[in-house]
Amino acid sequence: MADAAFLACDWGTTNLRAWLVGGDGEVLASRDFELGVARLGPGEAQARFEGEVRPGLGAEGLPAILCGMIGSNLGWKAVDYLPCPAALADLKRELVSVAEGVRIAPGLRGPGIAGAPDVMRGEETQVFGWLHQDAARRKERHVICHPGTHPKWILVENGQIVRFITAMSGELFAVLRKHSVLKSDAEPTDEAAFSAGLEAAEDGSALAARLFTARSRVVAGGEPADSTPSYLSGLLVGAEVASVPRLLGVEAREVVLLGEPSLCALYGRALARLGVATTTHDGEAAALTGLTALQMEA
Amino acid sequence: MADAAFLACDWGTTNLRAWLVGGDGEVLASRDFELGVARLGPGEAQARFEGEVRPGLGAEGLPAILCGMIGSNLGWKAVDYLPCPAALADLKRELVSVAEGVRIAPGLRGPGIAGAPDVMRGEETQVFGWLHQDAARRKERHVICHPGTHPKWILVENGQIVRFITAMSGELFAVLRKHSVLKSDAEPTDEAAFSAGLEAAEDGSALAARLFTARSRVVAGGEPADSTPSYLSGLLVGAEVASVPRLLGVEAREVVLLGEPSLCALYGRALARLGVATTTHDGEAAALTGLTALQMEA
Repeated sequence: MADAAFLACDWGTTNLRAWLVGGDGEVLASRDFELGVARLGPGEAQARFEGEVRPGLGAEGLPAILCGMIGSNLGWKAVDYLPCPAALADLKRELVSVAEGVRIAPGLRGPGIAGAPDVMRGEETQVFGWLHQDAARRKERHVICHPGTHPKWILVENGQIVRFITAMSGELFAVLRKHSVLKSDAEPTDEAAFSAGLEAAEDGSALAARLFTARSRVVAGGEPADSTPSYLSGLLVGAEVASVPRLLGVEAREVVLLGEPSLCALYGRALARLGVATTTHDGEAAALTGLTALQMEA
Repeated sequence: MADAAFLACDWGTTNLRAWLVGGDGEVLASRDFELGVARLGPGEAQARFEGEVRPGLGAEGLPAILCGMIGSNLGWKAVDYLPCPAALADLKRELVSVAEGVRIAPGLRGPGIAGAPDVMRGEETQVFGWLHQDAARRKERHVICHPGTHPKWILVENGQIVRFITAMSGELFAVLRKHSVLKSDAEPTDEAAFSAGLEAAEDGSALAARLFTARSRVVAGGEPADSTPSYLSGLLVGAEVASVPRLLGVEAREVVLLGEPSLCALYGRALARLGVATTTHDGEAAALTGLTALQMEA
């Protein structure tokens, strides 16, 4: 095995993905840890990192570069957000050292909507990694969708993140499915019901009323209760893609889907229905590229 | 005390309000019971009614008229919905007898939105009661808002309920406040934050993105976390009033608020901001009028 050069971690709310990277940027090993910051006790990030993550990858004593919620008040240290517009070079300049050889990339703060700033931690490193994968991408304008618990719609121009909007669709899905009158243990695998939910979303307006159709289609419309999670998923994704991107102030004729592939596929279906072309790119691969660029390049 | 003539019950999901009514329609006694259908075991509605509600009001042996979720599959008996348009006389013709002298008013089924029918149980009796309080109301067109866990927007023409739309705003508020990243134990009593939420709702579009501002205004905007429930309430009510009524297909320049007075007040503030005039009417008083008309008149 080649000599390891550093440890890269995309350390989020739920999970931590870590890569052991060699001197030419090659991945020597990688591993997921159930050590998301929501699972950490106060002040224990460093101890868990030294005691579990480093030994788990044989990365004792190596430099490390971290991004994501580990830089929040729930993580290792609350790192200040950088303002938008921001590029990879800005992130690199503002890395924060939290222990000998261990640095955290800051998140970004953008203008948001409705007078409130918007924030991200981790997605910026994926976006900059994706831009770093191809020089041509850094000369164009892109609308990037990063699906997840809190999906983000990100406007990129000339290699910079200009602004972004966060939605709560993923969390709405989770809490409604578990705690509301739409509660169901069924898996969201009913494709016809997902499509029906996309249709019901229409322009994404009046979401609170459209959500009730997930109930009424069952109690008065004869649809099977087990189809509720799929319908709800379609409704929420459909409403989001129909209404959120235009808050960026540009027309999104093509959207870059960057994230977990199965989630990207749902967004791809919803956007195709609106005539929007998409390309899909793995978020974790982009995170690794971004972290590697932050660590290795001048 | 005058002789009691009958027992009237508005029997909902959470609570049961019962009135003992005399031969001239006067209320001799009233009482709330924590016996909503969500709290009933399967098949026990009749036993709890006979064993607790009747004795609690000294109404043994009297005729009884019931409306609300007691007519659902969670209640005493699942009573078929009546189709819209429907008037008080239709409801009266379709009362369902569930025991000697005990009748349940059916709910209504309307065309809804997004291809799904919509349904109500209980609100129709309040609306017909409100119409019954004043003959002039039965010659006009009204847009009625009934706030609650599942608020309803109801179009009334010539004494008939023509169509209605149900929203989930109340339940969204409850589940987000309790189970999401917006979780807070604070009471929603911050008027400035409620107003800020109304403003943030704008036209009610892109709700999933606007909801995230309830988080970002705190973590990145410096607003106090305790103001989150008030802001969330304003955002959800504001988004609903800005987007749901027009699904009825009419312009709502005046809205009749019918329901629980403190909830009606929140909707009144939200509608005033849009330049919509409102009048407010107590829902339980209207329920009693409706139930009395169903029981006493020819």
